[in-house]
Amino acid sequence: MSTARVAILGASGYVGRELAALVAQHPELHLAACMGARAGITPEPPELPVDLAIEPLDLDRLDGVDAVFVCTPHGHAAPLVQEALHRGCRVVDLSADFRLRDPELYAATYGVEHPCPELLEEAVYGLTEHARGQLATARLCANPGCYPTSILVPLLPLLDAGLLGEGPIISDSKSGVSGAGQAPGRRNVFGAVAENFLAYGVGTHRHAPEIAQVAGTDRVVFVPHLLPMFRGMLSTLYVSPAPGIDADAVRNYLAERYRDEPFVRVFDRGQPETNRVARTNQCHIGVAAVGSQVVITSAIDNLGKGAAGQALQNLNAMLGLPEGLGLR
Amino acid sequence: MSTARVAILGASGYVGRELAALVAQHPELHLAACMGARAGITPEPPELPVDLAIEPLDLDRLDGVDAVFVCTPHGHAAPLVQEALHRGCRVVDLSADFRLRDPELYAATYGVEHPCPELLEEAVYGLTEHARGQLATARLCANPGCYPTSILVPLLPLLDAGLLGEGPIISDSKSGVSGAGQAPGRRNVFGAVAENFLAYGVGTHRHAPEIAQVAGTDRVVFVPHLLPMFRGMLSTLYVSPAPGIDADAVRNYLAERYRDEPFVRVFDRGQPETNRVARTNQCHIGVAAVGSQVVITSAIDNLGKGAAGQALQNLNAMLGLPEGLGLR
Amino acid sequence: MSTARVAILGASGYVGRELAALVAQHPELHLAACMGARAGITPEPPELPVDLAIEPLDLDRLDGVDAVFVCTPHGHAAPLVQEALHRGCRVVDLSADFRLRDPELYAATYGVEHPCPELLEEAVYGLTEHARGQLATARLCANPGCYPTSILVPLLPLLDAGLLGEGPIISDSKSGVSGAGQAPGRRNVFGAVAENFLAYGVGTHRHAPEIAQVAGTDRVVFVPHLLPMFRGMLSTLYVSPAPGIDADAVRNYLAERYRDEPFVRVFDRGQPETNRVARTNQCHIGVAAVGSQVVITSAIDNLGKGAAGQALQNLNAMLGLPEGLGLR
Amino acid sequence: MSTARVAILGASGYVGRELAALVAQHPELHLAACMGARAGITPEPPELPVDLAIEPLDLDRLDGVDAVFVCTPHGHAAPLVQEALHRGCRVVDLSADFRLRDPELYAATYGVEHPCPELLEEAVYGLTEHARGQLATARLCANPGCYPTSILVPLLPLLDAGLLGEGPIISDSKSGVSGAGQAPGRRNVFGAVAENFLAYGVGTHRHAPEIAQVAGTDRVVFVPHLLPMFRGMLSTLYVSPAPGIDADAVRNYLAERYRDEPFVRVFDRGQPETNRVARTNQCHIGVAAVGSQVVITSAIDNLGKGAAGQALQNLNAMLGLPEGLGLR
Repeated sequence: MSTARVAILGASGYVGRELAALVAQHPELHLAACMGARAGITPEPPELPVDLAIEPLDLDRLDGVDAVFVCTPHGHAAPLVQEALHRGCRVVDLSADFRLRDPELYAATYGVEHPCPELLEEAVYGLTEHARGQLATARLCANPGCYPTSILVPLLPLLDAGLLGEGPIISDSKSGVSGAGQAPGRRNVFGAVAENFLAYGVGTHRHAPEIAQVAGTDRVVFVPHLLPMFRGMLSTLYVSPAPGIDADAVRNYLAERYRDEPFVRVFDRGQPETNRVARTNQCHIGVAAVGSQVVITSAIDNLGKGAAGQALQNLNAMLGLPEGLGLR
Repeated sequence: MSTARVAILGASGYVGRELAALVAQHPELHLAACMGARAGITPEPPELPVDLAIEPLDLDRLDGVDAVFVCTPHGHAAPLVQEALHRGCRVVDLSADFRLRDPELYAATYGVEHPCPELLEEAVYGLTEHARGQLATARLCANPGCYPTSILVPLLPLLDAGLLGEGPIISDSKSGVSGAGQAPGRRNVFGAVAENFLAYGVGTHRHAPEIAQVAGTDRVVFVPHLLPMFRGMLSTLYVSPAPGIDADAVRNYLAERYRDEPFVRVFDRGQPETNRVARTNQCHIGVAAVGSQVVITSAIDNLGKGAAGQALQNLNAMLGLPEGLGLR
Repeated sequence: MSTARVAILGASGYVGRELAALVAQHPELHLAACMGARAGITPEPPELPVDLAIEPLDLDRLDGVDAVFVCTPHGHAAPLVQEALHRGCRVVDLSADFRLRDPELYAATYGVEHPCPELLEEAVYGLTEHARGQLATARLCANPGCYPTSILVPLLPLLDAGLLGEGPIISDSKSGVSGAGQAPGRRNVFGAVAENFLAYGVGTHRHAPEIAQVAGTDRVVFVPHLLPMFRGMLSTLYVSPAPGIDADAVRNYLAERYRDEPFVRVFDRGQPETNRVARTNQCHIGVAAVGSQVVITSAIDNLGKGAAGQALQNLNAMLGLPEGLGLR
Repeated sequence: MSTARVAILGASGYVGRELAALVAQHPELHLAACMGARAGITPEPPELPVDLAIEPLDLDRLDGVDAVFVCTPHGHAAPLVQEALHRGCRVVDLSADFRLRDPELYAATYGVEHPCPELLEEAVYGLTEHARGQLATARLCANPGCYPTSILVPLLPLLDAGLLGEGPIISDSKSGVSGAGQAPGRRNVFGAVAENFLAYGVGTHRHAPEIAQVAGTDRVVFVPHLLPMFRGMLSTLYVSPAPGIDADAVRNYLAERYRDEPFVRVFDRGQPETNRVARTNQCHIGVAAVGSQVVITSAIDNLGKGAAGQALQNLNAMLGLPEGLGLR
């Protein structure tokens, strides 16, 4: 197959620029167009430095484009997705617009009617390691949220295999501030982040319904926290194992499940650190016993496996390319 | 009562210097002696800037001293405590040496025989709001660990009142790096802390037995994490309420229990942030419902209410001074 | 003298809150009113934690108030100053409105006509150590900018004594981001500050005319930089000494000049660090020879000696109180 | 030419690991061996994550190796360089051992006799843009220090072209803490770096003689400072232009001089920021007039163009490869 032409819509945010940098270095993709609301503005701060010429949104420029990454805010993404599909592009949507299957749940969670519910059914939820069978033929991939990714990678196999007992599944999750986007606000100004730590969105975060839907259970108790750093995410899961199951069994099962996966590593011992996965598409997982609970820590880069990295992994799968191409 | 003369043993560490700064500003205490292993060395980095003349350890200088803070590492503290008591001083020990009542548990936890087990019984565990009755007549106060303080302030009243149901009590706790002390090491070098986050001591941290002893239960599942910041600590507790109890009932009970306490604040709504309690002796508490769990976040300054601040609060109580004197 | 009643106008910014915390702990001042545009909003992030009830601006509340700190932006401050003086208050203005004596220079620098040029002449430029003779009888004190303070404390005595030779006086100055205020913007969002460093306002910063006016020379070449931290400022000065003068002579002269000043310390050897002056009103100064130049480094807390601390020092002087009261 | 086999000696430090990551991704180089004192230890913290198997030093493993990067401390490097040359390898030495041509100056600067002065003459000082003619045939490249690189890239062309006037050339330089290496110490522990800023090595830093030698003048006044961040370096130069020369002329000359250089960018307007060059081999330069001086700011990644990046650029040049291969 010849090089695929790729466009990024919403390229001026952290995630869009991260994607642009990845695509620019990808051996089989050509970055045909970067469009965004803040056209022409030199993006800052860069982190993954790449000189981008961001142009105003002009969907006619999608003609001849094979694949589109949509990185705009939720609500704005769905109409762009629809238009891109209409023009024959394959689409990975990094917004929340196609993650929830139920349009009423979407409306309740995001406070707006879903702009194109008729597309919800065909959207494939792109937790790549659990979706690649469907991705090969998908037109539309809903890229998972960062928190759900960090939680579901270790959790889904355990639920599927029946290794968990009764009771709540706690996920105490912590994110670097890049997850809040680059628009300056009360929450991400330096003086409010540095030398500070807090829980936020307790009981109200929009990733909770997404986690419940994919996990197939309401038992997950999810509390997000804000770290005084830019990139990185770590979820600490507390689960009661099923009778006869202990931490070693959980660890061994996860290690076996992900043995051939290049982007998931289950530690024999010790705990992951977020700076070991920064600027990669990796998910590192540690498992230990503490009292009655099995404690699982799961580290990703929220902009990597939690957003742009997984989006590229998904597009690779959709295009029939080696899934890890252009990724670390 | 005339001004009390105070000495600090182990004054060159973060906690010792924090205490020195507090004592220096206290209207009823006189800082009679600062002794430490690193005598004469200008302490760095300061944080609470105060010019200290640190002298070598010389216990004869305790003559005429009314009260002693011991800030040396565990194992080294107990003999100093014994000597200070022998000379008629009242002692607040900030090491772990008198926190655990059982010398065998101490040996198993800290890897050394307890140097003076005969003093264990009289030591008062100084979680001030729960110990002041005993403190008035105590010769020796064992100052609580930082993690236990952040956890036990919200937890003890709930356990005492029977507001909790069955099942594990999760404490996902996060600390600034000052908790690791100022001796440079692999764990606290800038490049290992900044832009990084991790769990550590999972299942092995020495504060777990202390928590279990004071809480009177092995149900607490405690996992500490290291934050990329200097001072501050936040514990996120996940508890199953007793039948008929919900998050509002938990919040109201805690608010009522601590209504007259100047150093504990239970929020009507919202969650605490560590920078609101930095450089204070405050503990801020938020309560919310998430799924089946009541989630409690508890923020302290690990060097404040988690160490030096509470130590001074305890000494105030032991000396019959207003408990908040010299504290914010 | 009985306790003086103090009001703060513009209390919701970093400097206003820092001042509120200082006044609240001051033994001879009573915080009678805190007013600001963002009335009722809990200020964040706090740094110097104090619970403030900020009320809307209402100048009738200045009746019975002895002294006013004005912390509003330039242009907005002057009319408030005028009104406060009219009501018989003594005023310390922390904005730039009364720092420049020439209204045309003010207009050229700040882009607006000066609102009340008739007050310019009586305003005393409050670099306290060089202004206290005038402050005792002043109604209005123009509190110096943070950069000028860090530069002029070491520079003024050298200029006055003729210790400097020909040629440029370089000031390479670096500031923590709190100097940019708390309103979120492109410049102070976490992702733009953390792990970044840059010069800004090169050749255009508004503190340059202020420095030139007070130094009485256009030879100062001033370049400000932004540090990835919250509070603290360090200026590195490069000066050619006069014939026969060397670094030792410069150091000795400064040490002698400031020997009795509690808030200026000239180091015998070594260089100051900003964290040693954080949350104080101190200015620490180091002097060394490097090639043909004498290099002077001068460290302050930009919110302390660079703003709120010096403002309180100035008010103490205006009220006949001990100059260091309520300050470290 | 077939792929060249490369070895890294001293691979466990920040620079060695950065180089390992670069070589691992280089299309024409094969990482044949990583050796270091801390063999087998998983390096931390990683920053450029790459799984390295570091082996003990064994110079017999250099047989069949084409090129060697030496990343050990000064004094230890020279004997390794000698041995590697003896075995027919081409060598890029990242220590200071071959930067100074004069062995007596070396001894005076580094406090030890030079281990192999007979090699000093043939060593090429690898400021690549000014050395590539010699690099093509060099056996040994002395990789420049980070501070000298940031200073000399803008300064050398101006000196060569006679664009500077009389008087001192000031370089006020600031570095991230990774320049201090990863061995934990009083200077790089988190509590001493975060929220702090200071000048250090004033008048005594070992890079000063290197700058003087390459610049061919003692007029450079160099003062280094420590930034509260991990990677990045910015030097602010203050120079008096020659008669008839202004900032525009300086800027235009530098822009012209470096027009075809992929790793040097001279800004038309504005100032560089260190995070735009992080994890690249770029040097970004801004020029402005301030009073009598032309002010030049020069930003590099101290681990990139200041160390590992330039070392790879130099090896590319030595091997006849495109100079930018494997670099951003």
